[in-house]
Amino acid sequence: MNSELCFKTAVELTGLIRDHTISVVEVMAAHLAQIERINLKVNALCTLLPEQALEQAAAADERLARGEIPGPLYGLPIAIKDVVETKDIRTTFGSPIYKDFIPERDALVVERLKAAGAIVIGKTNVPEFGAGSHTFNPVFGATRNPYDLGRSCGGSSGGGAVSVACGMTPIADGSDLGGSVRNPPSFNNVVGLRPCPGRIPRYPNPQPWNTLPVLGPMGRTVRDVALMLSAMAGPDARDPLTLNEAPRLFAEPLDFDFKGARIAWSRNLGEFPVEPAVVEALESALPTFSDLGCEVEEAHPDFSGAGEIFQVLRAEGFALGHAEHLEKHRDLLKDTVIWNTEEGLKLRAIDVARAQARRAQLFYRVHEFFQDYDFLLLPVSQVVPFPIETDWVREINGVEMETYIDWMMSCSLITLTEHPAISVPAGFTPEGLPVGLQIVGPFRREIDVLRLAYAFEQATRVGEKRPEIAV
Amino acid sequence: MNSELCFKTAVELTGLIRDHTISVVEVMAAHLAQIERINLKVNALCTLLPEQALEQAAAADERLARGEIPGPLYGLPIAIKDVVETKDIRTTFGSPIYKDFIPERDALVVERLKAAGAIVIGKTNVPEFGAGSHTFNPVFGATRNPYDLGRSCGGSSGGGAVSVACGMTPIADGSDLGGSVRNPPSFNNVVGLRPCPGRIPRYPNPQPWNTLPVLGPMGRTVRDVALMLSAMAGPDARDPLTLNEAPRLFAEPLDFDFKGARIAWSRNLGEFPVEPAVVEALESALPTFSDLGCEVEEAHPDFSGAGEIFQVLRAEGFALGHAEHLEKHRDLLKDTVIWNTEEGLKLRAIDVARAQARRAQLFYRVHEFFQDYDFLLLPVSQVVPFPIETDWVREINGVEMETYIDWMMSCSLITLTEHPAISVPAGFTPEGLPVGLQIVGPFRREIDVLRLAYAFEQATRVGEKRPEIAV
Repeated sequence: MNSELCFKTAVELTGLIRDHTISVVEVMAAHLAQIERINLKVNALCTLLPEQALEQAAAADERLARGEIPGPLYGLPIAIKDVVETKDIRTTFGSPIYKDFIPERDALVVERLKAAGAIVIGKTNVPEFGAGSHTFNPVFGATRNPYDLGRSCGGSSGGGAVSVACGMTPIADGSDLGGSVRNPPSFNNVVGLRPCPGRIPRYPNPQPWNTLPVLGPMGRTVRDVALMLSAMAGPDARDPLTLNEAPRLFAEPLDFDFKGARIAWSRNLGEFPVEPAVVEALESALPTFSDLGCEVEEAHPDFSGAGEIFQVLRAEGFALGHAEHLEKHRDLLKDTVIWNTEEGLKLRAIDVARAQARRAQLFYRVHEFFQDYDFLLLPVSQVVPFPIETDWVREINGVEMETYIDWMMSCSLITLTEHPAISVPAGFTPEGLPVGLQIVGPFRREIDVLRLAYAFEQATRVGEKRPEIAV
Repeated sequence: MNSELCFKTAVELTGLIRDHTISVVEVMAAHLAQIERINLKVNALCTLLPEQALEQAAAADERLARGEIPGPLYGLPIAIKDVVETKDIRTTFGSPIYKDFIPERDALVVERLKAAGAIVIGKTNVPEFGAGSHTFNPVFGATRNPYDLGRSCGGSSGGGAVSVACGMTPIADGSDLGGSVRNPPSFNNVVGLRPCPGRIPRYPNPQPWNTLPVLGPMGRTVRDVALMLSAMAGPDARDPLTLNEAPRLFAEPLDFDFKGARIAWSRNLGEFPVEPAVVEALESALPTFSDLGCEVEEAHPDFSGAGEIFQVLRAEGFALGHAEHLEKHRDLLKDTVIWNTEEGLKLRAIDVARAQARRAQLFYRVHEFFQDYDFLLLPVSQVVPFPIETDWVREINGVEMETYIDWMMSCSLITLTEHPAISVPAGFTPEGLPVGLQIVGPFRREIDVLRLAYAFEQATRVGEKRPEIAV
């Protein structure tokens, strides 16, 4: 049956293609069938080019037969997040302002994914301009959580996470400013990595010195995420933050002995409320780390004041990104984007500079913390997937959320530290909703994060449970 | 004679010390004698600790005798720029506000220089808060140009450049935002390198995400500068911009065959006036590159609008750095610092974000330019060393300068590009004033810049001429 092929990992699929055991066309046809069967229910893929995809799959089979050396993602169907520009494929950013926008070129990351052999079959749905961790917009509507169609799939990389969760694509690209490549994996029982700034170069980019937004890979397994990272990462001189290391390491086996690793667990960084169902699911998973030989204790760096720093820096980016939209198309913007942009336009330069200075102190405190601990564990999301009609989470455990992003501090505070962080499936609520664990590793050490997440995944196998509607 | 020892290179001196041919105490005594003989004339070293220096030299000899493996700068006297914090040694920033400030710890770069074996003998003079490329302040007065005591030595790393030029220290640390490690070498016939942001990590640093200011080495030869860089560079996780490459490469021989290298020469980047004496000296030096087998043609990237971008980003940094000084000690600040800080305080966040967005376009244009050329040559300074009484250059070739930093656009515009740039001795005016050539290399390729500067230095030997007062 076709859907079986769709739940093979990217590592398996590329191996089968490379061995000529299956053809790229077979892989593509299976995924297109799965999309036809599932996508109407979840609305994860907002733009789809099936004929073109099959043509490219056939061409890939021909090139392979002629002896082309396949790249690491050869023959895998992929759909690109709709905030990332794709040549000749509509890119809406989830906004009616861009509902008919067709870019003339691919973003660098799309070029790289194509060069690695992936075949772009369409786009994945996003919140309007990627704002807020809940995927809905006036162009395509909402993407639904496949574990409960009445609930949110998170965001902003929601379409991608659901596509992967449902076997409609084996991998998906994401991006993350305040948690966008961590929260949707958590809500949909898949894996997502936020790398360090500069690991995956971005071009073109109007804000290349802004270290909050990054690109990141998603997949159903940690190895698939690492494989995808190996194709996305690596230096490019058009990104001033680019890191020079070659990304080969990420394609290698992730086995590692974590005996004696010092692990800190924090349910809230001392800063935010978390729903009991999230804490319970994660605390049930913690003994796995002891079983792996790690020393686990409750601890966290001092994050006081970090919420305000994040709000200032986020608002500055919104001001640059949306001042013109606000001026010309205010009526076409959602309230939260208007609010965030107006907050940014109120800021003085010194406010931002002072926020960065306070962030420097936080960065130093986190550095000190990582002298004593190898990893920091915490919830990916402060809440379980919420009803899809909710535009943003208004309260947690009776604590009122003042802004549309307050309920995502579990991710956004980590963003400020520039440390790599992964969301890995860790358990389910009694109602069957997925709960992800966030593993934060040492500065620039994505590989450590991937290895620990892999060890955890192998021990728990939580990520192997698929949504019933998709199997 | 002692001063002969003082004009040996750092490479030679460390070799002689390592071979036990001379002792560290001999080296130290020779330099202290040179300082006693010369410093009163030029006022380059503003704080001096001769007894402590001799004690540390004796201790270094003892450790060497006991078998300590000497670091790359072992036994070299060094004085630290007075804007860099030194443990237990007064650090004034050239400001009366800090005239009695004694830091409790060394900046990371000082730790590294000490760990490499250098012995800190005092501090080098700077403009007030390092502002402006002319070294004078109300605490210590002005540093004089050893080639003409009535003229400026440039700045802000002026004390360090003069100390090196006069053989008072073999090497000196500098820092550079708008040209501070390039202009003083140019005015004093020595070598100074502005590396890429992150090459030399900075800690502590209130603005670790600000990519304009960097640290850099100065010396009398390109190899000495490269040797010093090998001790200053290398990763440190406390700097979020840190580059991961090991700095060993910089300590290796710099010989390289530049046959066929594509070199662009620009006298003004199309943007600023340059005094004829500067252009004449540099154009006389250009045939050297043809002799080395390079292809030289006139060309430059499009820098239009870059001056304004630089002013905005510089002012933002001043606002953060000096808002509090302005509030509490306005009467103790020089006019240019007050002006620059007030300019920064007027800025909105969106002004800075838009300047960065325009800078991104410049960065991309320069990237394109470096697809066609391997190096860009231009003047380090738009003027020759000017009378020491001038607070800042008011006009060049009849063109009025609007601000105190307009006459340094030849350096500050290069800062925006993040490309490495070196100032290397290239010639003299008919009056005997030094003129430096600026060599800009590919992004992150300090080694290429050092190698070309070394080839040029070997071919021209301009840098071997020392100021008469010092020999």
